Amino acid sequence: MTLQRPLGVALIGYAFMGRAHSNAWRQVSAAFDVPAFERRVIVGRDPELVAEAAGRLGWAEWATDWRTVLERDDIDIVDICTPGNLHAEIAIAALAAGKHVLVEKPLANTLAEAEEMADAAAVAERDGIRSMVGFNYRRVPALALARRLVAEGRVGDIRQVRVSYLQDWLTDADAPMSWRLRRETAGSGALGDLASHAVDQLQFLLGEPVTRVSATTNTFVPTRPGPHGIEAVTVDDAVWATLSFGSGAMGSLEVSRVATGQKNALSVELYGSAGALRFDLEQINELWFLDATEPIETQGFRRILVTEPEHPYVDAWWPQGHVLGWEHSFVHELRDLLVGIADGTPVRPSFAEGLSVQRVLAAIVASADDAGRTVDIASINSEESP
Amino acid sequence: MTLQRPLGVALIGYAFMGRAHSNAWRQVSAAFDVPAFERRVIVGRDPELVAEAAGRLGWAEWATDWRTVLERDDIDIVDICTPGNLHAEIAIAALAAGKHVLVEKPLANTLAEAEEMADAAAVAERDGIRSMVGFNYRRVPALALARRLVAEGRVGDIRQVRVSYLQDWLTDADAPMSWRLRRETAGSGALGDLASHAVDQLQFLLGEPVTRVSATTNTFVPTRPGPHGIEAVTVDDAVWATLSFGSGAMGSLEVSRVATGQKNALSVELYGSAGALRFDLEQINELWFLDATEPIETQGFRRILVTEPEHPYVDAWWPQGHVLGWEHSFVHELRDLLVGIADGTPVRPSFAEGLSVQRVLAAIVASADDAGRTVDIASINSEESP
Amino acid sequence: MTLQRPLGVALIGYAFMGRAHSNAWRQVSAAFDVPAFERRVIVGRDPELVAEAAGRLGWAEWATDWRTVLERDDIDIVDICTPGNLHAEIAIAALAAGKHVLVEKPLANTLAEAEEMADAAAVAERDGIRSMVGFNYRRVPALALARRLVAEGRVGDIRQVRVSYLQDWLTDADAPMSWRLRRETAGSGALGDLASHAVDQLQFLLGEPVTRVSATTNTFVPTRPGPHGIEAVTVDDAVWATLSFGSGAMGSLEVSRVATGQKNALSVELYGSAGALRFDLEQINELWFLDATEPIETQGFRRILVTEPEHPYVDAWWPQGHVLGWEHSFVHELRDLLVGIADGTPVRPSFAEGLSVQRVLAAIVASADDAGRTVDIASINSEESP
Amino acid sequence: MTLQRPLGVALIGYAFMGRAHSNAWRQVSAAFDVPAFERRVIVGRDPELVAEAAGRLGWAEWATDWRTVLERDDIDIVDICTPGNLHAEIAIAALAAGKHVLVEKPLANTLAEAEEMADAAAVAERDGIRSMVGFNYRRVPALALARRLVAEGRVGDIRQVRVSYLQDWLTDADAPMSWRLRRETAGSGALGDLASHAVDQLQFLLGEPVTRVSATTNTFVPTRPGPHGIEAVTVDDAVWATLSFGSGAMGSLEVSRVATGQKNALSVELYGSAGALRFDLEQINELWFLDATEPIETQGFRRILVTEPEHPYVDAWWPQGHVLGWEHSFVHELRDLLVGIADGTPVRPSFAEGLSVQRVLAAIVASADDAGRTVDIASINSEESP
Repeated sequence: MTLQRPLGVALIGYAFMGRAHSNAWRQVSAAFDVPAFERRVIVGRDPELVAEAAGRLGWAEWATDWRTVLERDDIDIVDICTPGNLHAEIAIAALAAGKHVLVEKPLANTLAEAEEMADAAAVAERDGIRSMVGFNYRRVPALALARRLVAEGRVGDIRQVRVSYLQDWLTDADAPMSWRLRRETAGSGALGDLASHAVDQLQFLLGEPVTRVSATTNTFVPTRPGPHGIEAVTVDDAVWATLSFGSGAMGSLEVSRVATGQKNALSVELYGSAGALRFDLEQINELWFLDATEPIETQGFRRILVTEPEHPYVDAWWPQGHVLGWEHSFVHELRDLLVGIADGTPVRPSFAEGLSVQRVLAAIVASADDAGRTVDIASINSEESP
Repeated sequence: MTLQRPLGVALIGYAFMGRAHSNAWRQVSAAFDVPAFERRVIVGRDPELVAEAAGRLGWAEWATDWRTVLERDDIDIVDICTPGNLHAEIAIAALAAGKHVLVEKPLANTLAEAEEMADAAAVAERDGIRSMVGFNYRRVPALALARRLVAEGRVGDIRQVRVSYLQDWLTDADAPMSWRLRRETAGSGALGDLASHAVDQLQFLLGEPVTRVSATTNTFVPTRPGPHGIEAVTVDDAVWATLSFGSGAMGSLEVSRVATGQKNALSVELYGSAGALRFDLEQINELWFLDATEPIETQGFRRILVTEPEHPYVDAWWPQGHVLGWEHSFVHELRDLLVGIADGTPVRPSFAEGLSVQRVLAAIVASADDAGRTVDIASINSEESP
Repeated sequence: MTLQRPLGVALIGYAFMGRAHSNAWRQVSAAFDVPAFERRVIVGRDPELVAEAAGRLGWAEWATDWRTVLERDDIDIVDICTPGNLHAEIAIAALAAGKHVLVEKPLANTLAEAEEMADAAAVAERDGIRSMVGFNYRRVPALALARRLVAEGRVGDIRQVRVSYLQDWLTDADAPMSWRLRRETAGSGALGDLASHAVDQLQFLLGEPVTRVSATTNTFVPTRPGPHGIEAVTVDDAVWATLSFGSGAMGSLEVSRVATGQKNALSVELYGSAGALRFDLEQINELWFLDATEPIETQGFRRILVTEPEHPYVDAWWPQGHVLGWEHSFVHELRDLLVGIADGTPVRPSFAEGLSVQRVLAAIVASADDAGRTVDIASINSEESP
Repeated sequence: MTLQRPLGVALIGYAFMGRAHSNAWRQVSAAFDVPAFERRVIVGRDPELVAEAAGRLGWAEWATDWRTVLERDDIDIVDICTPGNLHAEIAIAALAAGKHVLVEKPLANTLAEAEEMADAAAVAERDGIRSMVGFNYRRVPALALARRLVAEGRVGDIRQVRVSYLQDWLTDADAPMSWRLRRETAGSGALGDLASHAVDQLQFLLGEPVTRVSATTNTFVPTRPGPHGIEAVTVDDAVWATLSFGSGAMGSLEVSRVATGQKNALSVELYGSAGALRFDLEQINELWFLDATEPIETQGFRRILVTEPEHPYVDAWWPQGHVLGWEHSFVHELRDLLVGIADGTPVRPSFAEGLSVQRVLAAIVASADDAGRTVDIASINSEESP
């Protein structure tokens, strides 16, 4: 693709994720060699709030109607940070309009929507239109390094994996009801919010999809004070699953919003025939690696401070040992999206990969609804799944 | 009970656990105020080896026939460190002979045996005969402190619990076949060896039994070189289970012998409405406690070095900060057994508690055999279980 | 001060620190409520490089002559990121021209220059002109929280302090000679680069200046390959000092560039009559606090993840548990500078505080030159010091 | 030496160290192949207390007069655990009587005594009489492994070393006066108690003696309540020193008894041209090793859990991952002493090595008394030193 003019970017949404993406759009061209782009417009429903956001977050214009924005010729990239129930409609329309699309995770709230989105992306891909789902943790340097080491065979054949994502913001049983705790608005609880990251991360690191799950979910605090009195919480607080992969690898997944004292603890462990890896998002700059081919005498998990120029993405930033934060993963995501657009090559995670995560989430629900019985991912059918 | 003369102790078994118990018998009266006892006899099948063990481990005599030893009037306590398939026969005979009994964990290899043992212990208890199953980790000071904090309400109502016990000694796929990897001799793999500790620990810390499980097991290395060629491994390498408790607490259990780089990593996490606790056996002197009632500004997991006189069992040992090891938990176990005998009070973990662990293990097998379907512990029947 | 128009900012320097400051100028108004400003001009000697930097780092214009820039009426703030030997000349001229000044640390290469700068800043202050020296680590949230806890008395009377700043980029004895290793260009080695941070941090946390030092310095690799053959390294690789404070507190300082495997390890420990604090820059989001007024049974260093809205500066960023990086400390620095300018209140660290650090560094040199003999800071005289 | 009968052991002292040594004497022959010995007699001044100790700690007899014990033909080894001011007299007499001698650290309270002891040991050595000073930390498996790695060149040429030993038992300013805080009884404070361990450890690990020191000492709590009113503390609470070695290595030493929250934190760090090592006594089973010859991408400090059969001393104990405690270092010490006696080979640390530590401590005092001025160890003269 020959870029005649700067790419035009539209961002839809200005809440938490809109802020995080805006930050990344402000940062990416200072750190990386990317094609020129302009932050043209931010879109939101409330005119006053979106106007304020445009000024604060650095967008040239603001708008309230995303459909109108999709019609603009000067918009090349649509970055979707809305609640999940709007992802499908906007993304499909944007792809149809020939825009490259980045959509926040999870891909959609329902499996049917996710399938439509993946289909639309596959069609658009033939015309050189790129699409990406925002599982940003793939671009945490330590996790990108982990993937590199796995691909190089440094851990051998992976056997046992463990992933957990623990938070505690629902620990207080008196915390009030909100839209996030109602199934009709949020789709699910920790499942869509946290388990989606966990599943994508495992599939990314192993390079293969989950094939079977056995799962259980629970709502520890079943009612909470709502605006009109006590109300039932209709989403999960926590999810447990045992996962199988086609290679024979197996593992556990556990996510929670009531893990008291755990703030944002995404933990990943991989145990292979030749080594092992461990990571914790609260210490985002560190990867722990054990090389089992070394003599026992000096074998041990080594703490790699992933802040050196030799590490993925890091040479764009600061000298050795100067740590990065959570937000940098979004900058790296945009870097790869922009380079893909410029190079005319597909970007990842694709919508198909996002759909793959949704299938696993649907299988988790199906298994949990059937008392934990093991469910084949292949059997998951969008007509029966939420 | 008036102790007219030193208690006579017989130890049956001289392998790993026989060594660990011998060590504890040598140590306990130097550290603690306990009734007088004598290490009278160690019993084993091989005369040469048991004779050598007697000298090295500090037993006055040795014998090869445990039945004869049970007939001796000068034996008051029988400490059973044999393989699990002999536990029931010896323990029941010893109790019938009026001896106090300590039996290594797990209580037995089959549920039926465990039930008989618990029955025998209940009968003997009426005559003041004490029985204890050797879940020694209850007496690790940090875990005893954890139980104390739970009992005092420092973590509030426990909701989510996590326990894992990871080892790596089967990581090498070329490691040879052994009796530990055959179902007929070992009963099970990581399940009986590691999950039994994990289950007892959770039931101890929560003060209530598991009520339901959903589980999966796997053998990652399905064949190994045996003396007569390649042989099938017939026990599990790893187990995953989701556990429910009557109080509403839920949690995960994961044990493995192929977790590369993990040497002896029993990890326990408890998340409650008022706080949280974390422990790792590889850092046996530390307990991590978070008090969620403190202001957020200074809230955090604190590392308690459990080496102060204020901590359970510790004042018997060294001054502040002088760390203890794995073996000390056995010394504490004997201390409590001996004090229970002297005081005429029951000791714990009782055989009934050991049986409770066996029921959970049987339920795990039942669930795994039924594709992970949730199983009620109450439904476990010794006639159908291994 | 009534701000009639956006403040105009000029940045002088575009190397490592110029990049870090540019990043902060791009970020600060998205995160914080600060007076409006414009990134007007970046200044550097090489026209081609500074032009490229202007585009990449987000400055409206570029220039090669800082004197001309100081004459511009549309420049209100001058941010000096040049090598240290230019700090004094530029800062004094800028203050004389009525510009607010931010100068990177250390304040200057010589004590005499630092004194002149402090004098100039004091004069300018009377006219409402603000000046700040860029000891950015004061604005790491964890260290800002540490200062808050000290000020609130949570550690009681501070007695013993420990600070070390360890790096390893000179470990390789074959690494080539550079201007950083020659006294005439760099002034000193680890002393000015690392010890300056360490000293400022201690004086900040304790709220009082160092009064006496006993010190030693060393160059472990005394020669290195230069462009014209082997050349003598004329700056220090490492510095050790024992520090005393007027309150009676005492402590150690140790900095190094040959601490193999340590990438950017600024470690601070404070031990007081009522508690203790620990911090490590490689885990920048964590502060360890021990409250010695709690019962021994549950006393321990707690790991505070300093990522909550209750923590200094954090509410401007992301939700709970989303970690920040090294660069955020510069954003916070600018926030406080801009607010000070808007409010008409002095900002810190002042040039006087920067001078205070220089005096301690000079005393370290004096002591090291006199075989470690203790030197009073009060005796340090700019006429005799480097 | 042909051992005709079991070696007879006498222990002098029954307080903390007497207990720790008794424990080791009870343990050593169960764990290691050592010549036969008998715990014949324990000696103490108070008949009632020593009689009780004999029973509890496992000694056949007790006595109150060490001189009489030295005359006994059935005593071959004298283990001296008295206060330091008695070390010289007893040890010299025991060596003269042809007994092998183990003396607790530090070797003596004064340099003159230490010199006499080293002389006596050298004379006795010619007759095959062994002597050892009890710097037990050399036999912590992790530190023995550290020494092995240094000797094998795994860290290259050692440049910078750091050792600290921090405790907090004097943090409370109202804690009463005791003999340990008076110079006439204790000799010194943290210096003799903690710095002696630290110095020996460095000299052991580097394999060479300290050659120069610059030091400072301080008493943070200068008065304490005594039996007859407020009394001056006449020993140090904390010591700081910069140390030089003949090889060019340099480092820092810091010890304290007022480091709030630090219970028994002996920390050692070695930075060399090819790698680095770190150790902390509170996590006694771990050694951290960085191999700087590996590619940067996967370089990092690895945590070696020093609990494998391949590690020093460990194969005598439990299977993989079963951690040891503080007390095991004494068992290892006795093992090496007994093997040395049986083999007729010298044992270490020798009295000469103990003397070497004393010289460094004396140099620290001399430097601190001279405002931190650097002192050559070679200049230390027992006639002028305490």
